[in-house]
Amino acid sequence: MDDRSYFETLDGEDPLADRVSRFELPDGLIYLDGNSLGPPPIGVAATVEQTLAREWGQDLIAAWNHHGWWTLARRTGDRIAPLLGVAPGCVIAGDTTTVALYRTAMSALTLRPDRRLILTDTGNFPTDLYALESAADHTGHAVVAVSPEDVIDRVGADVALVALTHVDYRTGRRHDMSAVNRRAMEEGAVTLWDLSHSAGAMELDLTGADFAVGCGYKYLNGGPGAPAYTYVLPGHLDHVVSAISGWWGHADPFAMEPEFVPASGVERMQVGTQPILSLVSLFAALDVFDGVEPSSLRRKSVLLTSSFIQLCRTMVPEVDVVGPSDPAERGSHVALRHPDAGAIMPALRSKGVIGDRRPPDLIRFGFSPIFQRHTDVWDAVVTLRRVLDSGSGGPVDVEGPVT
Amino acid sequence: MDDRSYFETLDGEDPLADRVSRFELPDGLIYLDGNSLGPPPIGVAATVEQTLAREWGQDLIAAWNHHGWWTLARRTGDRIAPLLGVAPGCVIAGDTTTVALYRTAMSALTLRPDRRLILTDTGNFPTDLYALESAADHTGHAVVAVSPEDVIDRVGADVALVALTHVDYRTGRRHDMSAVNRRAMEEGAVTLWDLSHSAGAMELDLTGADFAVGCGYKYLNGGPGAPAYTYVLPGHLDHVVSAISGWWGHADPFAMEPEFVPASGVERMQVGTQPILSLVSLFAALDVFDGVEPSSLRRKSVLLTSSFIQLCRTMVPEVDVVGPSDPAERGSHVALRHPDAGAIMPALRSKGVIGDRRPPDLIRFGFSPIFQRHTDVWDAVVTLRRVLDSGSGGPVDVEGPVT
Repeated sequence: MDDRSYFETLDGEDPLADRVSRFELPDGLIYLDGNSLGPPPIGVAATVEQTLAREWGQDLIAAWNHHGWWTLARRTGDRIAPLLGVAPGCVIAGDTTTVALYRTAMSALTLRPDRRLILTDTGNFPTDLYALESAADHTGHAVVAVSPEDVIDRVGADVALVALTHVDYRTGRRHDMSAVNRRAMEEGAVTLWDLSHSAGAMELDLTGADFAVGCGYKYLNGGPGAPAYTYVLPGHLDHVVSAISGWWGHADPFAMEPEFVPASGVERMQVGTQPILSLVSLFAALDVFDGVEPSSLRRKSVLLTSSFIQLCRTMVPEVDVVGPSDPAERGSHVALRHPDAGAIMPALRSKGVIGDRRPPDLIRFGFSPIFQRHTDVWDAVVTLRRVLDSGSGGPVDVEGPVT
Repeated sequence: MDDRSYFETLDGEDPLADRVSRFELPDGLIYLDGNSLGPPPIGVAATVEQTLAREWGQDLIAAWNHHGWWTLARRTGDRIAPLLGVAPGCVIAGDTTTVALYRTAMSALTLRPDRRLILTDTGNFPTDLYALESAADHTGHAVVAVSPEDVIDRVGADVALVALTHVDYRTGRRHDMSAVNRRAMEEGAVTLWDLSHSAGAMELDLTGADFAVGCGYKYLNGGPGAPAYTYVLPGHLDHVVSAISGWWGHADPFAMEPEFVPASGVERMQVGTQPILSLVSLFAALDVFDGVEPSSLRRKSVLLTSSFIQLCRTMVPEVDVVGPSDPAERGSHVALRHPDAGAIMPALRSKGVIGDRRPPDLIRFGFSPIFQRHTDVWDAVVTLRRVLDSGSGGPVDVEGPVT
């Protein structure tokens, strides 16, 4: 592992090499921010252009039926389902992740009307905490946020909903989803997982999970602000409805009935008319996952993050590796701590290594197995060594909406 | 008005002719469905392609700042503001219209905690009724739906929120917005308008209105499922927050604070990360409205709908014109009633006249003044005459999501 050829060999043997070649990243760029905004797979631009110029521009209103826009959210959900390890028919795309989390939490709470607590952890992504507080406000619940390691012990008969993000957006720390789900089932609590930093980078086992949501623009490469997705345990589809009723969730939207009657399938979780250009981008981007076993994503992800951590420890020992050492306990990104984080990341970026920063002192590197080259690991750490040797410097960067 | 040359003369004198020429509709198509899905102005495809291939594809995560994606929802709102007759800074784009209506209704209700009724009308678009019911469920309110003509009399001291769609999606009947707003102010009720069938086709006077939402894909031509927009009376921006808290509405989103602190401006109404490809399409589509006075849109709209109604009465007298005869009482679309509506519309479409249908017996024609030619009126009615003479027939069409 002490020279680049080791990583070149790994790339040569990469079972996902044919997928990597379906991305065309700018020359010389080491992109370690696919966990914030995945890059466009080749072909997505052409699909969106076709949708815009040919379907919208030529077929206009008729495109809704002729080109399947009306069913696109469901078909997108069906493509995401294998990445979640679930069957088609229980995932639907749509809305922003925060809105999806809010309305799904609200829906989930109706299953336990006699309990008053929403349990989450203090490391949850802030927007999840905000949305859960809104849901709690609107239903007379209270949010209890404990340390991630204390979640399982806190699940009890007073908890209506356990709402967690699977992989911590900063440290990469990963909850033991199965253990939480088991404990929640024992105590009769409902579970809602945010899979934004998981799906597309690892296999998932949603056994015992009731609901999940996730983001379309990170490891799924759906494009900036791509619609979110919502998973519902099939057994709940008979008696759970979207907390926000809207015509896209109606059993017969074009009957234009004044009374809301929910659709029979996962379509009932829909609300309003989805942004088709962004949705078709997500749909097309999912092509690259066709036939890919999530376990192969995970194997490569572990290899990438483990070798990155090992190289950091030997080549940049003055930087602390944050988060779990055991791959079983982490997701697909790695955070490093350094007091000069705010200067190091711009310096890295100016040298073509793109990660991001989480104030005050973390720099974060995402490894998206579907497009990442193993040489990215080597090149990134070598560049980091160079930046540290040069005293880094440079201005503190202004962050974009990266999570 | 009894031959095509009359309408050709109107087109020749159309003050909006330079805008009409910025749309490139398919040859020979008479598109009278811009009130369901507006067509793409020339240039939108190139802008979206640039956003996708150059900004997302090349600049990746840095595009959020470098290309202003982070402020795009606000800048889009600022472009919509003149079409609503309001100042920049109080309109923001984002979410679906149904979600926007739900969260804005929820926010508005916090202003009248002591009142228990949401007043609407029975002609409201069904998704609005569904979303208002959800908001009522979550706040302990009740929805009262009266006939449109009875709304003003029903406004009373028990009404927290008057939530109406300005222009009826079927008949084109238009509420007297100023009269409703005055009455609501007298009675201390808050108002929330759905402008989906208004903005982009007429001038609006939101004096006395508290909140409004509307749709980006009808008269605004933003593309299929383009994000909605939300208007907040500037005086409310100090004390009303989004009912769904999310990081895009936070005063400092990248501080990643566990506590929600609302942004100071209309950005506080935002929730989650918006679909940028769809949003940039809407932003670019608004180019054609630059420098256009809404009153000029309205003048042309009245001319289009009035001449259509007059021609229908003389040329297809067996068809009933539904909705108000007085232009002051109608929006920019006209509905016709005929027992064979389900067969007439497909026949019209097969002859290149695109309107839509509202079961059981209405066919609907929208006149979007920004791209419509006056000859469209003549050509549509002549074609309708031909269809009726031929006995129409043909299969009943399956509708797409047109409102």
